[in-house]
Amino acid sequence: VEDVDFSNLVISVVGLGVIGGSFAMALQQVKPGKLYGIDKDKGVLKKAEEMGIIDKGYTDASIPLKRSDIVIICIYPRQIYGFMKQNMNNFKLGAIVTDSAGVKIKLAGRLQDILPPDIDFIFGHPMAGREKKGIDYASGTVFQGANYIITPMPYNKEDNIRFIENLMIKIGFKRVSRISCAEHDRFISYTSQLPHAIAVALVNSDEYQEDIGLFIGDSYRELTRIAKINEELWAELFLENGDNLVKQIEMFESKLEEIKTFVLKKDRDALINCFKKACKRREAID
Amino acid sequence: VEDVDFSNLVISVVGLGVIGGSFAMALQQVKPGKLYGIDKDKGVLKKAEEMGIIDKGYTDASIPLKRSDIVIICIYPRQIYGFMKQNMNNFKLGAIVTDSAGVKIKLAGRLQDILPPDIDFIFGHPMAGREKKGIDYASGTVFQGANYIITPMPYNKEDNIRFIENLMIKIGFKRVSRISCAEHDRFISYTSQLPHAIAVALVNSDEYQEDIGLFIGDSYRELTRIAKINEELWAELFLENGDNLVKQIEMFESKLEEIKTFVLKKDRDALINCFKKACKRREAID
Repeated sequence: VEDVDFSNLVISVVGLGVIGGSFAMALQQVKPGKLYGIDKDKGVLKKAEEMGIIDKGYTDASIPLKRSDIVIICIYPRQIYGFMKQNMNNFKLGAIVTDSAGVKIKLAGRLQDILPPDIDFIFGHPMAGREKKGIDYASGTVFQGANYIITPMPYNKEDNIRFIENLMIKIGFKRVSRISCAEHDRFISYTSQLPHAIAVALVNSDEYQEDIGLFIGDSYRELTRIAKINEELWAELFLENGDNLVKQIEMFESKLEEIKTFVLKKDRDALINCFKKACKRREAID
Repeated sequence: VEDVDFSNLVISVVGLGVIGGSFAMALQQVKPGKLYGIDKDKGVLKKAEEMGIIDKGYTDASIPLKRSDIVIICIYPRQIYGFMKQNMNNFKLGAIVTDSAGVKIKLAGRLQDILPPDIDFIFGHPMAGREKKGIDYASGTVFQGANYIITPMPYNKEDNIRFIENLMIKIGFKRVSRISCAEHDRFISYTSQLPHAIAVALVNSDEYQEDIGLFIGDSYRELTRIAKINEELWAELFLENGDNLVKQIEMFESKLEEIKTFVLKKDRDALINCFKKACKRREAID
């Protein structure tokens, strides 16, 4: 990790929800010259100021953006286009802009015609979060040990990509990877959207209802925690990445059907092989 | 919780794997007169003695069984028949015997003709465990706050059922429920076996392999932890409860298909309703 002095740099975080709030907290570690918060909700900005996690909050983005060397956008994916369009002329020359959206292809396509030439928008995805929304659930440690993904675009400057990599490692991420937007959206449909679809389907396939809490163990609790889902955000992520998600659901269904078939055929050996394969794969990512 | 003096009682735990070992540890809290371990593996018995979690270990079950007021059987479900048959005449008059098997109907059916009339076999299911096997992973706290299920049989004595309920609460279980074997096996196929089938299928539907560890977050980690599965035990549980499990898999598949259809139709409202329903249900069991 390169040693960068952040004390001359101004950072703005756009959207102080659970992710933006967590970034503001985690960024304290690099001691930026100034850290501004941008949000449409004055109450949230006031709370962030009182928590001491931003120097000042703004509902008018143009004021802090003009001074910001780094901008981290933490609003819902589909709001990013509107934000960028509205603020096209408000960025500081040479600013590095990044986001935290969980889907990339459609976003990159939408933005390509409106990105100002004198800023560098580097797509980023912090693979960490919480099932709750809002600044009250923000945490300065939620990124500790987590994965971070950058999907570089041809127009990104290598130095700026390195700067973001460096910053993310500094605030706690363990590994930063670079992949294309297409790979990102494929991988993420498997590692993130599919698990959420599964958790929701599992909870919704409860025929018993009222008493089920008496008959569950840790496995059910763990597999369904993320069914406490932010419905607006995840509807957006599912629809933005629909083609990939549908393919992943079908691949998963085929593997589950395999298990069902082994059970129906009472094929113990096939079940054991299937379990051994899963066990080996899962142990490899610990 | 009734106040029982355990200092005059002798307890034996049969099978000192992760569950039997955890029972031996947790039972220290009630200070039994004697606590014996029964296992076919001398090394495991020696280890349990050295750990101080049993007073003495036996490979010959007949010696401790003759003295035991309470026997907790923690071997694989399909081994219980053989153990009971072999030891039919070794139990103390009036002994309370219980098990920890995750499936009940077939087990109860198999045992009905060989249970000695002068003992009371009360079927129990501790809904807690770990993905690892063996005494090295036993834990005296794994039952803390967990659910425990009893499936009473017509021949069980009410006092003895109450005794087991009382004991389980004393060693850390939070809630003890009574349901029929049929209900038990239906509920458990949903809350326990289905999640394991899902975790295995999710890990096995990874097309990307080597790099996937770089692109996962907590949700994937959590949904797949139990894919580190004890393959022998779970093949047995799946096959012992095959009819219920197949029905549950199909119910789950239909709910996942629902989500897939909403995504294909780009039906945001339906997705949001589906997420809201899941969220509400999951919050209710926290």
